[in-house]
Amino acid sequence: MQEFNIKSISKEIIPQLQSKIDSKTKPIGALGMLELVALKIGLIQNTLSPELTNPTIIVFAGDHGIASEGVSAYPQEVTHQMVLNFLSGGAAICVFSKQNGINLKIVDAGVNFNFSNTPNLINAKISMGTKNFLNSPAMDKVQCEKALSKGALIVKEQGEKGCNIIGFGEMGIGNTSSASIIMSILCNISIENCVGRGTGLDNLNLKKKTQILKQAIKKHIPNIEKSNPLSVLSTFGGFEIAMICGGMFQAAELNMIILIDGFIVTSALLVASKINPSILDYCIFCHKSDEKGHSSVLNDLNAEPLLDLKMRLGEGTGVAIAYPLIKSAINFLNNMASFEDANVTKKTI
Amino acid sequence: MQEFNIKSISKEIIPQLQSKIDSKTKPIGALGMLELVALKIGLIQNTLSPELTNPTIIVFAGDHGIASEGVSAYPQEVTHQMVLNFLSGGAAICVFSKQNGINLKIVDAGVNFNFSNTPNLINAKISMGTKNFLNSPAMDKVQCEKALSKGALIVKEQGEKGCNIIGFGEMGIGNTSSASIIMSILCNISIENCVGRGTGLDNLNLKKKTQILKQAIKKHIPNIEKSNPLSVLSTFGGFEIAMICGGMFQAAELNMIILIDGFIVTSALLVASKINPSILDYCIFCHKSDEKGHSSVLNDLNAEPLLDLKMRLGEGTGVAIAYPLIKSAINFLNNMASFEDANVTKKTI
Repeated sequence: MQEFNIKSISKEIIPQLQSKIDSKTKPIGALGMLELVALKIGLIQNTLSPELTNPTIIVFAGDHGIASEGVSAYPQEVTHQMVLNFLSGGAAICVFSKQNGINLKIVDAGVNFNFSNTPNLINAKISMGTKNFLNSPAMDKVQCEKALSKGALIVKEQGEKGCNIIGFGEMGIGNTSSASIIMSILCNISIENCVGRGTGLDNLNLKKKTQILKQAIKKHIPNIEKSNPLSVLSTFGGFEIAMICGGMFQAAELNMIILIDGFIVTSALLVASKINPSILDYCIFCHKSDEKGHSSVLNDLNAEPLLDLKMRLGEGTGVAIAYPLIKSAINFLNNMASFEDANVTKKTI
Repeated sequence: MQEFNIKSISKEIIPQLQSKIDSKTKPIGALGMLELVALKIGLIQNTLSPELTNPTIIVFAGDHGIASEGVSAYPQEVTHQMVLNFLSGGAAICVFSKQNGINLKIVDAGVNFNFSNTPNLINAKISMGTKNFLNSPAMDKVQCEKALSKGALIVKEQGEKGCNIIGFGEMGIGNTSSASIIMSILCNISIENCVGRGTGLDNLNLKKKTQILKQAIKKHIPNIEKSNPLSVLSTFGGFEIAMICGGMFQAAELNMIILIDGFIVTSALLVASKINPSILDYCIFCHKSDEKGHSSVLNDLNAEPLLDLKMRLGEGTGVAIAYPLIKSAINFLNNMASFEDANVTKKTI
């Protein structure tokens, strides 16, 4: 894999940052998690006056061979239909990004469709979808490396345009199956506790999905290096998951703030963090998804997300709606008066 | 009390609203609580295409006689100092309201300070603060009525300026003491479970606060009509709490969306809802405060707030930072494509 130089964040300015936060006209700690976000971003940018520039969400879309096994409530064609919906502005992520002033980029990571007439789509297609991992690995090692590099390159381009805060989103019918297996293996949690309803399976089909994933794990586990997260990623992952993983490495190398969405994006981070835990220093967890496995993988990462609105849509929607809270964290740090500025008496007892 | 004509919301368009929500290009229910907010606002406005106009937060400030007993970590003068900080734009509520495009109005409901040179402050002063309810009722019935009416009048003025969504905030050293007693009596929960640290009391002073409030309840309980919420409000409340209560009645009569902040504002709603439960049809609960009693009073009102960020600042800050989520709820309902619009295949299994 391409080498990324991700430096672990210096904690040196914590006392000054905390003192600035505590000087603001509010009781100590009264802004709760916004104070933690302000502190984290101050550390990432190594400044007492952080700034957010060109906030961007990149949605990576890819198709999954496993979809042919009926693991999703929707047919595979929905992946490309939703990509077209992203491009024409009709999807939830479009509406929320526009509302909150976030640039939105859509990437074809490997969708089973020919998007020849769509100039606004970033073409990073690896193939027309992964292979069905019930039969063979989802991708080969070359494809996986390529996906990681392409994800990194796309993020690099955003960095060059002045983006210092980046969120990741995804679309791919079948991708909760990939994420569930990745999580099960890398967190060492039984697959039953990692599988959820995805886009809305009923009980019977949830059971079927679980059986299929069990079978797939059984088939490949002898050939996987469990301690090698890339081996898990290439066997069970999607092209969009691999690109997000590569994009995250690049974002951390470029000292960007990384905004984590729901279950699928967290599975990409899980892979990245098992390779280089320093990446977690750059991450803000935006929301807890209602998809079953998300709580446990968040626990594994010791993450406390900002929002818990029972959403389970993906696309980066959790990032897009959490973004104003992150802006609020920066704004209070930069713009609130201190007790001294405002001549307000401090705590007396 | 002035009569308010609060109509209970018609549920007639629920099927059409739900069908519009379900037609959007997302799995059924995948936007979680945003869908509930969209439904609620559609019902309040009785339309499939609701709009938010001139969003406004009114912060009511008042002083409390009980503050002289040392129930707060900050001295009483902080109330007026913070009012000046609101007016000069340095407080958290100013920063967050500005960020999110919310009009901010500051009201002197009864602060122990002469604000003669502050034209931007709405003067609704009842007196220089309530009486110390350890000795006598906080206000007399005439003052309480006056506060309710003034709160209503201020909201009416905002309605005339085209505001259809209103949030309430408060400032008043000592006001968690009022809110705790109101909650204890109206929810029938022991005072120990309603008292919290407010702006940051240590264990010793929390114990002292609890003892003082117990003593106050004991003194007045024989003279209070427990079934009369206004009697509880006038005996233990603050002018800001009474004005918020009156303001909420007026907002509901005018068919406004009412945004509920933290512990103090919820105590005002508690009084209002015990007088007329229909008011709850107009309310969106913005956040769960970290102040101890808030969870229980939210349970009593059967409320599930949007945010839980361990904040405990008041001022309406929970409303201000939740507002973009409410906008997102309206925006998805009005602007997302339907499956039909976008030619996306519906769920197949």
